[in-house]
Amino acid sequence: MTDSFKIAIAGLGTVGGGVVKALALRGEELSRRAGRKLEMVAVSARDKNKARGFAVKGWTDDPLSLAKSDADVVVELIGGEEGIARQLVETALANKKHVVTANKALLAKHGLQLAQAAEKNGVTLKFEAAAAGGIPIVKALREGLIAHGVDAVKGILNGTCNYILTEMESSGRSFADVLKEAQAKGYAEADPTLDVGGGDTAHKLALLASLAFGTVPNLDAVAVEGIERITPDDIAFASEFGYRIKLLGVARRIGNKIDQKVHPAMVKGALANVPGAANGVLVDAGEAGSFFFSGRGAGEAPTASAVIADIVEAASGVSSPVFGRPASDLSRIDPADGKQAVSSWYLRFEVLDVPGVLASIAGHLAEATVSIESMIQRVRAPGAPVSIVMITHECAQADVERALKAIAASDKVRARPCMIPMEA
Amino acid sequence: MTDSFKIAIAGLGTVGGGVVKALALRGEELSRRAGRKLEMVAVSARDKNKARGFAVKGWTDDPLSLAKSDADVVVELIGGEEGIARQLVETALANKKHVVTANKALLAKHGLQLAQAAEKNGVTLKFEAAAAGGIPIVKALREGLIAHGVDAVKGILNGTCNYILTEMESSGRSFADVLKEAQAKGYAEADPTLDVGGGDTAHKLALLASLAFGTVPNLDAVAVEGIERITPDDIAFASEFGYRIKLLGVARRIGNKIDQKVHPAMVKGALANVPGAANGVLVDAGEAGSFFFSGRGAGEAPTASAVIADIVEAASGVSSPVFGRPASDLSRIDPADGKQAVSSWYLRFEVLDVPGVLASIAGHLAEATVSIESMIQRVRAPGAPVSIVMITHECAQADVERALKAIAASDKVRARPCMIPMEA
Repeated sequence: MTDSFKIAIAGLGTVGGGVVKALALRGEELSRRAGRKLEMVAVSARDKNKARGFAVKGWTDDPLSLAKSDADVVVELIGGEEGIARQLVETALANKKHVVTANKALLAKHGLQLAQAAEKNGVTLKFEAAAAGGIPIVKALREGLIAHGVDAVKGILNGTCNYILTEMESSGRSFADVLKEAQAKGYAEADPTLDVGGGDTAHKLALLASLAFGTVPNLDAVAVEGIERITPDDIAFASEFGYRIKLLGVARRIGNKIDQKVHPAMVKGALANVPGAANGVLVDAGEAGSFFFSGRGAGEAPTASAVIADIVEAASGVSSPVFGRPASDLSRIDPADGKQAVSSWYLRFEVLDVPGVLASIAGHLAEATVSIESMIQRVRAPGAPVSIVMITHECAQADVERALKAIAASDKVRARPCMIPMEA
Repeated sequence: MTDSFKIAIAGLGTVGGGVVKALALRGEELSRRAGRKLEMVAVSARDKNKARGFAVKGWTDDPLSLAKSDADVVVELIGGEEGIARQLVETALANKKHVVTANKALLAKHGLQLAQAAEKNGVTLKFEAAAAGGIPIVKALREGLIAHGVDAVKGILNGTCNYILTEMESSGRSFADVLKEAQAKGYAEADPTLDVGGGDTAHKLALLASLAFGTVPNLDAVAVEGIERITPDDIAFASEFGYRIKLLGVARRIGNKIDQKVHPAMVKGALANVPGAANGVLVDAGEAGSFFFSGRGAGEAPTASAVIADIVEAASGVSSPVFGRPASDLSRIDPADGKQAVSSWYLRFEVLDVPGVLASIAGHLAEATVSIESMIQRVRAPGAPVSIVMITHECAQADVERALKAIAASDKVRARPCMIPMEA
């Protein structure tokens, strides 16, 4: 074996702790895989004195000093698209250190510049842990499914949302209720916006889309809608139609453009069966067909597993381009007009139980050239609002939105109508 | 870019043709990914004059000459564990050429020696296409899921078997009928033994087990049973219990030993939903949890996809060890005594409709300490044999086999009783 491969870790939260523990437990075997002895040389975290249950070596209070240490790789597990995380990664690359990170926000926002910096300095920047945790989907897209091009990537990429939707389905409880419980149990953040609002999924989708299509990661092009407005009724109706509601990140090629969006979707098949806090990704790899990947997308061991795979690869000298192609090859493809995307739609209206409401809704839909495939109307109690649920034939999002705007203006319609696309 | 990366291909069947076509279609993009121009320099196949629908360059009648050409990589798509395929791979490695192959039989049988030869000569030997076609499962096991160890790999690895079982389920037809049709359609070989008898799955399982557990591929240790004896009744009963029957390759760690077997199994969940000719693999990656991969496991584009990913990696200079660890690290772990493996079992008996038969069966099972969880008895027509189906509580295979041997000896029992383990 040649010299040891020196590892510096910034951030000792759940994932950082998992990495340190796994390296302590299986470092020898992993070193033999890498062909070099893996050696933890330095760590930095917020609180030196926190009880962690494992020993740390080479403590420093200043994470930036890791980028100037004698480490071969800096493992950035601080998080955040700006600030210290960004500074650390940029400095480490500039100092010709490999970087392994789980920071989806940083890469979604600054992926191109960072890839350029890595190439310029002859080092690697790896981020398997940034999307879908333990599932080796970054590797699969970057190196595996490259021969026939990718037409679409569809993923359940946020475990918190999938947990909440799964709980809502099994218990019939409301979004707010389940979220509160998830927060109490530590499954959801005190400020859950980034998860339930779809922002986290958008970060991950931007990375997967870049790998799939050879494009510059383009977070601004991702249309984002969260799961906050999903009701137990929607979930129950979905089930009646043979579907489940999942928060999906979807990136697909439409002509010579790319459409990227995050939204709740009605799904069947493999994606519908991704349970609890798990993640799942479906890749349409052109002629080679569809490939599906699922497993744990967050948490200590799965995410540490991805980080460690990247460390071992960096140690063994593997240096594939950051996004699978040279940074100069990454293209800036125009975003498709997502509003023109065609789909069947699930629509739910809460209306007053008075004559003419259905006729009025049907009229507005017809006017917008939206035609109905099936319908359920359900009265809950005399005098209470009535749920009208429709599945449309395929039509453009813009047409449905136009109809819904007109319908929502009626004083017989309570609350904003709900629309969810039917996927897969 | 540095010099071009010269590719020689031996074998222009379905897969070889797919590789040539994909390189012609997307060679430029793939070259940029590899960082070197990919260049087809030589091919060899059985019949020069066969109409192929694509142009070939550098024809030679002697595949062995490819190993002595100026190619950087020899792509072996001839197949077979001995003969010309083995000679070609050995000669190519000895001549310091990278090798990419889809040859599961060759690697399952001679994996260790070939890995040693590759290491000794400083070249790579890659075989993503040898197991599960387009699914990048070799890569996932070799490089992705390495941090926490693997406890078990369970795979649907033979598309022909999965197609036949799926057809039997949807049509209610017999194994023989569906096989005959599959042969007529070209989905099954004229001699289907290697597929339906489980041998092909065993080859693939031996490779996945080596990657998962760091062991020398050990084909001899794989206990193999095929799908020939599965009846439409078994499939229908499985469905009543909420299961599907799939041919699985299962490798798992039991204590400090490895159990490897290929057999029909009752499955639920992700593996049960692998349709038609697709493949699916479930990996229990210790603390990191379970990961599932599925997609097309055979055919032109999916298999070519795997071959091309390997070629691009070889071209870009990536040289991870053949089975994920240095050949000298691969251990020879004792096979576990598979007969002691514990499972619930599906049992089916065809018996004469006369008093005392059930009592006799139940008595033999009790004597072997096999206890019954549930039972279905069904008469088809007066006087016709009766199907008795039981699901046992967990017990060792050896105990069930002991009971079945005693039961089969009765003249009231028609045909050999059927036993199928309940998995996952």
